Amino acid sequence: MRILIINGPNLNLLGRREPGIYGNETMDVCIQKLRDCYANDQIEYFQSNHEGAIIDKLHEVGFDEQYTGIVLNAGAYTHTSLAIADAIAAIKLPVVEVHISNVHARETVRHHSMISGVCKGVIAGFGLDSYRLAIEALSAK
Amino acid sequence: MRILIINGPNLNLLGRREPGIYGNETMDVCIQKLRDCYANDQIEYFQSNHEGAIIDKLHEVGFDEQYTGIVLNAGAYTHTSLAIADAIAAIKLPVVEVHISNVHARETVRHHSMISGVCKGVIAGFGLDSYRLAIEALSAK
Amino acid sequence: MRILIINGPNLNLLGRREPGIYGNETMDVCIQKLRDCYANDQIEYFQSNHEGAIIDKLHEVGFDEQYTGIVLNAGAYTHTSLAIADAIAAIKLPVVEVHISNVHARETVRHHSMISGVCKGVIAGFGLDSYRLAIEALSAK
Amino acid sequence: MRILIINGPNLNLLGRREPGIYGNETMDVCIQKLRDCYANDQIEYFQSNHEGAIIDKLHEVGFDEQYTGIVLNAGAYTHTSLAIADAIAAIKLPVVEVHISNVHARETVRHHSMISGVCKGVIAGFGLDSYRLAIEALSAK
Amino acid sequence: MRILIINGPNLNLLGRREPGIYGNETMDVCIQKLRDCYANDQIEYFQSNHEGAIIDKLHEVGFDEQYTGIVLNAGAYTHTSLAIADAIAAIKLPVVEVHISNVHARETVRHHSMISGVCKGVIAGFGLDSYRLAIEALSAK
Amino acid sequence: MRILIINGPNLNLLGRREPGIYGNETMDVCIQKLRDCYANDQIEYFQSNHEGAIIDKLHEVGFDEQYTGIVLNAGAYTHTSLAIADAIAAIKLPVVEVHISNVHARETVRHHSMISGVCKGVIAGFGLDSYRLAIEALSAK
Amino acid sequence: MRILIINGPNLNLLGRREPGIYGNETMDVCIQKLRDCYANDQIEYFQSNHEGAIIDKLHEVGFDEQYTGIVLNAGAYTHTSLAIADAIAAIKLPVVEVHISNVHARETVRHHSMISGVCKGVIAGFGLDSYRLAIEALSAK
Amino acid sequence: MRILIINGPNLNLLGRREPGIYGNETMDVCIQKLRDCYANDQIEYFQSNHEGAIIDKLHEVGFDEQYTGIVLNAGAYTHTSLAIADAIAAIKLPVVEVHISNVHARETVRHHSMISGVCKGVIAGFGLDSYRLAIEALSAK
Amino acid sequence: MRILIINGPNLNLLGRREPGIYGNETMDVCIQKLRDCYANDQIEYFQSNHEGAIIDKLHEVGFDEQYTGIVLNAGAYTHTSLAIADAIAAIKLPVVEVHISNVHARETVRHHSMISGVCKGVIAGFGLDSYRLAIEALSAK
Amino acid sequence: MRILIINGPNLNLLGRREPGIYGNETMDVCIQKLRDCYANDQIEYFQSNHEGAIIDKLHEVGFDEQYTGIVLNAGAYTHTSLAIADAIAAIKLPVVEVHISNVHARETVRHHSMISGVCKGVIAGFGLDSYRLAIEALSAK
Amino acid sequence: MRILIINGPNLNLLGRREPGIYGNETMDVCIQKLRDCYANDQIEYFQSNHEGAIIDKLHEVGFDEQYTGIVLNAGAYTHTSLAIADAIAAIKLPVVEVHISNVHARETVRHHSMISGVCKGVIAGFGLDSYRLAIEALSAK
Amino acid sequence: MRILIINGPNLNLLGRREPGIYGNETMDVCIQKLRDCYANDQIEYFQSNHEGAIIDKLHEVGFDEQYTGIVLNAGAYTHTSLAIADAIAAIKLPVVEVHISNVHARETVRHHSMISGVCKGVIAGFGLDSYRLAIEALSAK
Repeated sequence: MRILIINGPNLNLLGRREPGIYGNETMDVCIQKLRDCYANDQIEYFQSNHEGAIIDKLHEVGFDEQYTGIVLNAGAYTHTSLAIADAIAAIKLPVVEVHISNVHARETVRHHSMISGVCKGVIAGFGLDSYRLAIEALSAK
Repeated sequence: MRILIINGPNLNLLGRREPGIYGNETMDVCIQKLRDCYANDQIEYFQSNHEGAIIDKLHEVGFDEQYTGIVLNAGAYTHTSLAIADAIAAIKLPVVEVHISNVHARETVRHHSMISGVCKGVIAGFGLDSYRLAIEALSAK
Repeated sequence: MRILIINGPNLNLLGRREPGIYGNETMDVCIQKLRDCYANDQIEYFQSNHEGAIIDKLHEVGFDEQYTGIVLNAGAYTHTSLAIADAIAAIKLPVVEVHISNVHARETVRHHSMISGVCKGVIAGFGLDSYRLAIEALSAK
Repeated sequence: MRILIINGPNLNLLGRREPGIYGNETMDVCIQKLRDCYANDQIEYFQSNHEGAIIDKLHEVGFDEQYTGIVLNAGAYTHTSLAIADAIAAIKLPVVEVHISNVHARETVRHHSMISGVCKGVIAGFGLDSYRLAIEALSAK
Repeated sequence: MRILIINGPNLNLLGRREPGIYGNETMDVCIQKLRDCYANDQIEYFQSNHEGAIIDKLHEVGFDEQYTGIVLNAGAYTHTSLAIADAIAAIKLPVVEVHISNVHARETVRHHSMISGVCKGVIAGFGLDSYRLAIEALSAK
Repeated sequence: MRILIINGPNLNLLGRREPGIYGNETMDVCIQKLRDCYANDQIEYFQSNHEGAIIDKLHEVGFDEQYTGIVLNAGAYTHTSLAIADAIAAIKLPVVEVHISNVHARETVRHHSMISGVCKGVIAGFGLDSYRLAIEALSAK
Repeated sequence: MRILIINGPNLNLLGRREPGIYGNETMDVCIQKLRDCYANDQIEYFQSNHEGAIIDKLHEVGFDEQYTGIVLNAGAYTHTSLAIADAIAAIKLPVVEVHISNVHARETVRHHSMISGVCKGVIAGFGLDSYRLAIEALSAK
Repeated sequence: MRILIINGPNLNLLGRREPGIYGNETMDVCIQKLRDCYANDQIEYFQSNHEGAIIDKLHEVGFDEQYTGIVLNAGAYTHTSLAIADAIAAIKLPVVEVHISNVHARETVRHHSMISGVCKGVIAGFGLDSYRLAIEALSAK
Repeated sequence: MRILIINGPNLNLLGRREPGIYGNETMDVCIQKLRDCYANDQIEYFQSNHEGAIIDKLHEVGFDEQYTGIVLNAGAYTHTSLAIADAIAAIKLPVVEVHISNVHARETVRHHSMISGVCKGVIAGFGLDSYRLAIEALSAK
Repeated sequence: MRILIINGPNLNLLGRREPGIYGNETMDVCIQKLRDCYANDQIEYFQSNHEGAIIDKLHEVGFDEQYTGIVLNAGAYTHTSLAIADAIAAIKLPVVEVHISNVHARETVRHHSMISGVCKGVIAGFGLDSYRLAIEALSAK
Repeated sequence: MRILIINGPNLNLLGRREPGIYGNETMDVCIQKLRDCYANDQIEYFQSNHEGAIIDKLHEVGFDEQYTGIVLNAGAYTHTSLAIADAIAAIKLPVVEVHISNVHARETVRHHSMISGVCKGVIAGFGLDSYRLAIEALSAK
Repeated sequence: MRILIINGPNLNLLGRREPGIYGNETMDVCIQKLRDCYANDQIEYFQSNHEGAIIDKLHEVGFDEQYTGIVLNAGAYTHTSLAIADAIAAIKLPVVEVHISNVHARETVRHHSMISGVCKGVIAGFGLDSYRLAIEALSAK
């Protein structure tokens, strides 16, 4: 199993950004835990604050059959980016949408996702464990 | 780990209801697989087409510390029942909201959930595997 | 021809509820007239104020090929119950939606039906004669 | 019994217009069948693509006590014409609104009718049999 | 002073249409009274139930400098016809919008006028006297 | 005939306020012209920028049978004051709503009037001549 | 005086449900206090989490002239149940709507009541004292 | 107990304003009855049609610990005045919102209150008895 | 190539209607230029202010395989006519929607087209050259 | 430089009103500090809870060329008063809108300002320092 | 003639992205055909998935008088990017908006364009031929 | 004092972009004036048309205690970028939102800011002087 995790804007600040919402753990620690947990699998990681860079990455990997699927936490772009939604619809690999916080318990603007409709499924609210659950979901395919 | 799975309206028809959306497997088979998978844990199951009965069940179990948590697929009540949302908010156990289909890829009326905001998290779109992922999510707590 | 008529909430009060809107005739008299009119056919009748009980009944009968179809006056649930709509979509029998009053000439909340889209057709505004027209509609199939 | 059937825009194309929605039968055949079925009654027919011509016809017939009532399929004007609604409200004869297709199962713009509120009742979704049911409805008066 | 009064759909029924709203007087009597009142002026009258015919008439007269202005009661087209609004904007003569009833005290759909913004002014709610006031308004120019 | 003209907020600035919209004539000149024009009648005038003062004045005069009616230009309160609407509904005298400019050709916020529904009628867009037309309208009663 | 108090969904949890909003007192204690306070009157109590059961109870009691009236706290069904509103409109007894918390100071979804319009009146925000005030209100009739 | 009753716009007309909605009794009679009823307490009364005067009065009394609370019927300002809402939030005394009529059974514009969220509670629909119930509510504190 | 150009309401006024928006050239000149430009092809022209006449013409030509396609500038009916949209969907010939002005740079009511969804494509904003581009578009088929 | 600061409703309570939002400093202290800071300039101050009094004051000063400009904190009237907006548009002096708190971080009703569009500019969120910044802004002209 | 074609996000995938909507031809082939077709003109091409890069390019070229104009298919940014709209409004060159598919026949989110109002015109729905038509449109200037 | 000014999309064109709205001065001149004015302080400047680059810059500086604060004119991203809002909320430094023009006097789409709620405050409408006022605001801290 080879999986790419893509994180969108501001997720590079995990561990020092609003810990009440996002917790104290950094993404580095999180990725390491996932690699320990899935020792036989390849877990790759990409983060960008640029909408265009996320689209570029989805294109680069999205037709490559060596990958099992993509785990995408698009951050705020989840709620505003039709272009990322189009990229997900355009590629071949399944994409699982994840959120660390329960977006539905937050401000209204975070209740609607532009991308859910073109993703395979959605996992939200389980803290950093959301990423592990998304890998589990892809592994079941 | 002791977990209660609650299924809402029309989910008793799984396997013979719109297989294009919900698949061919029955809930009986699904529960059996989950029990096989989590052989050391207790997986209980309850289904009702009655909003009130779901609330009654949430009250009955929701303060019982012998349970780890509740997996709830409220079916159509997800989108219309403030009363179930109030029940979830009132009880002590964590509740994970699940959906078999990707509700965001369906009609608009299914895009808004009354209960997501009071659940621990949401898992949607992975077919019957959504239930396993929800148990995974509760096990991580 | 074997037909089940299902009446939803408050329709047990016909004859003593707001006669200006619903008329003075009781449902008993109405059913008797229909049975007289369709003497060679079976006209069955079920009423409940419980959303869940209506769903249970739709499931119980909805896959039974001995029935020609179902005539459903879901009363106020017409406008609020996605769960009944899902039940209609899930079963095999055709369902005809009926209303005694012309719902479109009443309050705005009654102008939108949750269930019309999954019914075979809609008949509204002809008083208790709406039920006879619905049986006529099913007989034409 | 003397009844006028009025068909609105594009209904002259029945039989060659989108047969998946409207079927293959022409309106001529439909009217002939209705005349056969109601051999003792007078069934008149009028079709126009002009909103104003439909209003003119409603005025011409609408105060004439020789008629039992009017069956109106206003086509797309159902959803846009307040002027036809005003004409129906202004005349004396009862008008039954009919639709061939189940308008509620189609695009949103077809879910709201400007004229339902001033009609005696509504019959929708039974193909060309909707016209027969409307005559039945008027005959019951 | 030469003035054209244009009446839209259903206004030919004045005197026999919903007298509670529109009164018992016919338009013939109304026009005669206006001609008596303005004996030195020319009061012309045109009525049609056809949106297109009203536009044709506006074009025919609207560039003719022998006219002082147009009094327009567009009936239901007031609320639905952008095409009549465009015609008013296109012509040279001033147009005064009139209504017999107080449209703002009626159903919501009658609260918004498509044409007010391109008319010189609006007079509503004074019964048939609204027409006299509109002529007064044009005479002041 | 005894008539009270009530002007609302900012109308004391007529003649020096946005002359492109409201013209150069002051209200003093306007009232004098009306008194000249209706020499046998009593034309009284009241202006206030205070919503409460307008309500007080409506109460003071509104049950006095010596008055024929009230001409009210409520200015911006037209669009925001339910309290003035309630005062108009509460009193006995007929009230005619007037506007100098064509409010429908201006910003959206000016398209809806809180008070039209409880006034006898509305006259808008004829500059200061709107006041004369309103007196004409009351004189016809 | 004979009064029925009906409590809707989740109100059986009073005393252990979100005490910050609903307080620590149980409904048992509350009912006992009311009975002490109105020692000469009959105070009956019914609670259900089932929308249908509340409707059944309203029907059962609502035509019985031995009762003075009904005090109804419909809980979350206040905001979603047209069927309960229809039941209230159908019966003869006056119904007073009560709420323990000030619903208007909570989430938007709780600001609109489906049933207020058909109740005699509304009392909200006084904790369990709201029930006493409702009995006071019925006693004044 | 010392209580101030504040009445907003048009409530000075009670007894002669729309008796179908507000009854025939004047506020003077109502206040006298309340004083008789609460003979040991001080019931003060203030009415104004001016939004600003109501705010001034709320400020004047709202920090005075000699008062038990304020009963406020803000009339139409209930639905439009954020400034009164801010005044209620700013002061120390509890304010009970009352309405004579059942505002929820009237026009839509009266269904939303600007002030409910900052009041202690709401009592509506019991005629002039609403004031007594509000005093009862304050007495319970 | 044989092409029918259909122009809707008010487009007969081109050259004398609001030249700031529509230019000074008449449609006659425009058609002549197109015929010069496409000398080997047949360019036919039809204009009407009547919605019904446009539908009649679409029906008359729309199944005739001698035509390559239809260029339609429906004027204001673009934004209000579901009936014309239905006619376009019903016929066989491709229809290209054109607009002289850039409708998206004008009032909001012109931003939504009822007919775009059933046309082959849309060309807007190029003045009378929009017609030539539409013929180009049809020629490419 | 001569500047008038106008404060709207409830701002007289500064220092004792919701200090978490508005701070502990009174307006007297604030004005004194500003006068110290701008010792060579005239800083005048006016506060009223009456919408009409604010309009009167804007009229009184707004055409007086001895003033440099007006600093206006209209409090809650910011969000509801079209009449104040009209007054600002009518006068000659520039008006700077200020807010003590960051209105955009508060309830939705405070996100929209009726008056921003007619003010020179807006300054919000800097506590009482917002007033100093507004004077700075006017001084730059 | 020198023309720059700018393609936005995901348009680099043409030929392998959802061929049912976008066809099988790649953009390379399309550009080559356009260069063959306009052999005497310069056709330049730029594609980026980055909103900012599209803005940079518009700035770089948009004031350069050697260019005739810009053909812009902004892809999904059409519907979300006010920043690109501002860039188009800021530059000097005319911009023609193009779409391969008929965006109006697709999901609602694609019915509204942020940029149409500031473009010279719009061409949509003609497949890759839309680009040729846009060049035609610019050549006519 | 060390301050970073960040300018968003299209603000690099200041001086040659729509001078009627944005004036003729370039940003270079503006920054130089600010540096002259605050000669003892450090004024840094960053501009980008890329949403992601603005986020990167906010992250880079936003935790650096050597800075006093950030002045941000996010241009069109003000109205569309939840990702920039998240970045502002995530960092430690105070951010002041500025606008050159009075955004509230422009198109509706510019009336709502995504970022105001997470900024310290907002300054809009004072031309390039807005930047100086923002520095003033930060200096007061």
